[in-house]
Amino acid sequence: MKKDFLYREIAENIASKIKTGVLKQGERLPSVRMLSKEHGISVNTAKRIFLELEAQSLVQSKPQSGYFVSPLAYLKLPLPEVSKPLPVANNKEPKDLMTDVYSTMGRTDLTLFSIGVPSGNILPLSKLKKEIILATRSLKEGGTEYEPLQGNVKLRRMIAVRSLAWEGWLKEEDVVTTNGCMNALALCLIALTKPGDTIALESPCYPGILQLAVSLGLHVLEVATHPVTGIDIDALKNLLPHVNVCLLVPNFNTPLGYCMPDQRKKEIVTLLATYNIPLIEDDTYGDIHFGAERPKCCKSFDTEGNVLWCGSVSKTLAPGYRVGWVAPGKYKDQILKLKFIHALSSTSIIHEAVGNFLMTGRYDHHLRHFRKTLQENYQHYALAISAYFPEGTKISRPQGGLALWVEFPKEIDTTELHHFALKSQISIAPGRMFTLQNQFQHCMRLCIGLPWTDELQSKLKQLGSLAKMLGQVKNTSE
Amino acid sequence: MKKDFLYREIAENIASKIKTGVLKQGERLPSVRMLSKEHGISVNTAKRIFLELEAQSLVQSKPQSGYFVSPLAYLKLPLPEVSKPLPVANNKEPKDLMTDVYSTMGRTDLTLFSIGVPSGNILPLSKLKKEIILATRSLKEGGTEYEPLQGNVKLRRMIAVRSLAWEGWLKEEDVVTTNGCMNALALCLIALTKPGDTIALESPCYPGILQLAVSLGLHVLEVATHPVTGIDIDALKNLLPHVNVCLLVPNFNTPLGYCMPDQRKKEIVTLLATYNIPLIEDDTYGDIHFGAERPKCCKSFDTEGNVLWCGSVSKTLAPGYRVGWVAPGKYKDQILKLKFIHALSSTSIIHEAVGNFLMTGRYDHHLRHFRKTLQENYQHYALAISAYFPEGTKISRPQGGLALWVEFPKEIDTTELHHFALKSQISIAPGRMFTLQNQFQHCMRLCIGLPWTDELQSKLKQLGSLAKMLGQVKNTSE
Repeated sequence: MKKDFLYREIAENIASKIKTGVLKQGERLPSVRMLSKEHGISVNTAKRIFLELEAQSLVQSKPQSGYFVSPLAYLKLPLPEVSKPLPVANNKEPKDLMTDVYSTMGRTDLTLFSIGVPSGNILPLSKLKKEIILATRSLKEGGTEYEPLQGNVKLRRMIAVRSLAWEGWLKEEDVVTTNGCMNALALCLIALTKPGDTIALESPCYPGILQLAVSLGLHVLEVATHPVTGIDIDALKNLLPHVNVCLLVPNFNTPLGYCMPDQRKKEIVTLLATYNIPLIEDDTYGDIHFGAERPKCCKSFDTEGNVLWCGSVSKTLAPGYRVGWVAPGKYKDQILKLKFIHALSSTSIIHEAVGNFLMTGRYDHHLRHFRKTLQENYQHYALAISAYFPEGTKISRPQGGLALWVEFPKEIDTTELHHFALKSQISIAPGRMFTLQNQFQHCMRLCIGLPWTDELQSKLKQLGSLAKMLGQVKNTSE
Repeated sequence: MKKDFLYREIAENIASKIKTGVLKQGERLPSVRMLSKEHGISVNTAKRIFLELEAQSLVQSKPQSGYFVSPLAYLKLPLPEVSKPLPVANNKEPKDLMTDVYSTMGRTDLTLFSIGVPSGNILPLSKLKKEIILATRSLKEGGTEYEPLQGNVKLRRMIAVRSLAWEGWLKEEDVVTTNGCMNALALCLIALTKPGDTIALESPCYPGILQLAVSLGLHVLEVATHPVTGIDIDALKNLLPHVNVCLLVPNFNTPLGYCMPDQRKKEIVTLLATYNIPLIEDDTYGDIHFGAERPKCCKSFDTEGNVLWCGSVSKTLAPGYRVGWVAPGKYKDQILKLKFIHALSSTSIIHEAVGNFLMTGRYDHHLRHFRKTLQENYQHYALAISAYFPEGTKISRPQGGLALWVEFPKEIDTTELHHFALKSQISIAPGRMFTLQNQFQHCMRLCIGLPWTDELQSKLKQLGSLAKMLGQVKNTSE
């Protein structure tokens, strides 16, 4: 405890020196060894301090040279506003916009800032291929048979083992596999709701979740959400008497990228248990933490089996594999029954291959590189936005995940920007997609899973120019 | 037309000679060449005549020896009764029974007469493996990417090409791929219904479909069904004013195995279009015809886009691959939207592999052997049942597919038989699973997709003895 306190004190001390300008941009920091010697802490603790500072984008490491004050430490772009959705259910779907944006999926002639998936060249493709081929060869009957209803045993065991890192203490029998995370969320919502029920969500919210709720005939309550700490618990509390189910993405939420602090996770779990409202937790991004440690989940604090914890490898390994899962707590029987009805089985070969891949330990090795790349990408994006985007632009400070949320000055309509940008072979996700209300018209989500290149930088520059142009036209015509 | 008439006349003439005992069991029939010469027809027409007679189990071929009168031609077992469900919606789910029976899935210590899937040793496993490995190696980014929303193009193109055989005239843009056929049916029902709506189904009906309907809050109308010609159109017509959607399995329906005659398919399509009731057609078994020709579908007669035609390779290639599809007619937009919400994408590698497999022409080659094996299995089963099962047992005459429906004398309860049989390592599907009403308690479905061996024969014998014992106990205690 004391050690933990010391570690935090040193980290905060360095952070404050950077923020107040005592340490200047580009300046070299003491080495790990020096820091360890100076404070009488272990080399590992010293390393962890730098990783934490790096996660906050205050320092950056340069290979063979040590740590330096990051240019992002002095980023002038403010945070986006706290969202203020109406406290009543709404259902204004941005219909054509959704179809429009998602139809760009897979187009190779576009720069796809719009789609929230990692680019293939930061994935362990050859190792995955190997596992698929091995599974095809080794599985009984070549993997043509149905899996057991609950799913591949190795995969479930590895999900359980990995849950120790976030104090989930899952056992393999607690986990049901699914065809990706959206399939898990769909099974949960079908199990827990009937049309006319009300669901509470973070705002802004991933469009697929909004569409799912609407398609099931649910009333959608969007709840005010802070860009750094997540859903506003007081706002949620006021709405709870009208709520039947709550769905949250507390870790590296798309589009905002925040990580809800542990204390608030615990608070939410207790609050919802009191009201006997089930919590569906989408933790698809949980493994993509920029900080040193895998964050806990709401499920970590779930003593009643009231949290249905969902995840997948779609954002870390392979979107096209359709490998997801849910630990449904006390709702397991209902989920299994629905899985039988809607899917019968997952794809035997692929789930076996991912199970094996997780067992080799290659996943953690991959994740280390993957997270570092994404964090670096975020830094590149932030600097480019700072240089090229209209004055008054605000951006989120993702602590993990694949998304960056951009808030333009009010006069820039991102649905218009989307249409303009498409003509320049650029696809973005306009803010209006992330709500069923009239908000976020001047916001957009950018995917940071694309490899950083000169071309990508020039595309961001181009996007910035288009946004500036739009803003000028609006200001002139007013 | 005249030629077709001649062909039928010759076939019927031989059939009648067999049925009236002019040709006796085991007797050799004229050779293809002789038949061709005698009637002045082509060798191909003569072959087709024998194939038709073989499909009706009147003759059987012996390699290098020609055609002989089949022992099945004199099968004394009568047909099952026409079902008589109540003309009102009912929802008596046989809950524990379902879980009980499906939990035997994958158990290698049991003889699984209960599960309607083909055994691995009648599937083209090595060719499929090869295709998976090729797809893994050749796909962009190793198949880790999402597919286009509508699904793999090659697969859709091949489904369209194959639809020519049954006069479906589909184009690749008419087809949406899914994770197996149950997933296709689920998307269709979610798109077309809301809770409280009424669905009309054949009776008996595949349990997964009944469960799906119940889970979506639908009222289920089971309609009287004939074991050879399918749903009773007059009975259906009387119910239509209360029906919102109709789901049929007209080709080699599980459990009854009939093929609804073309004229009746056409009649149903016209009738439902008049009432503006969409028809979901499950054609998963359509390719498993014992007769010479691939039967038409209801979709073949659909001029309004009112038929949502669903299929898969789960019963012909690989249950564990989860490759299915739907040609949703005028409901395509709704299906695409739901696919996006519930699944996002199918498994890229596997769908590519199956698309490639279909393109090679290996599928038809496989199907020829596969159908022949299943038909031979049916004949073996029928003879064994005739020899070993209680007097008064009736069986269906499957014209294709994987299922045989057995109707015992009333006093034999198949749910009891299921519990007894399990103790002898035999799993069956009791009739009660195939209805939400109190019927079929003395029926069961047997899967004919298991390879015929002496051991399987002795298991059928054992099952027959158990059924006889149950019947005797009941008769004694009465």
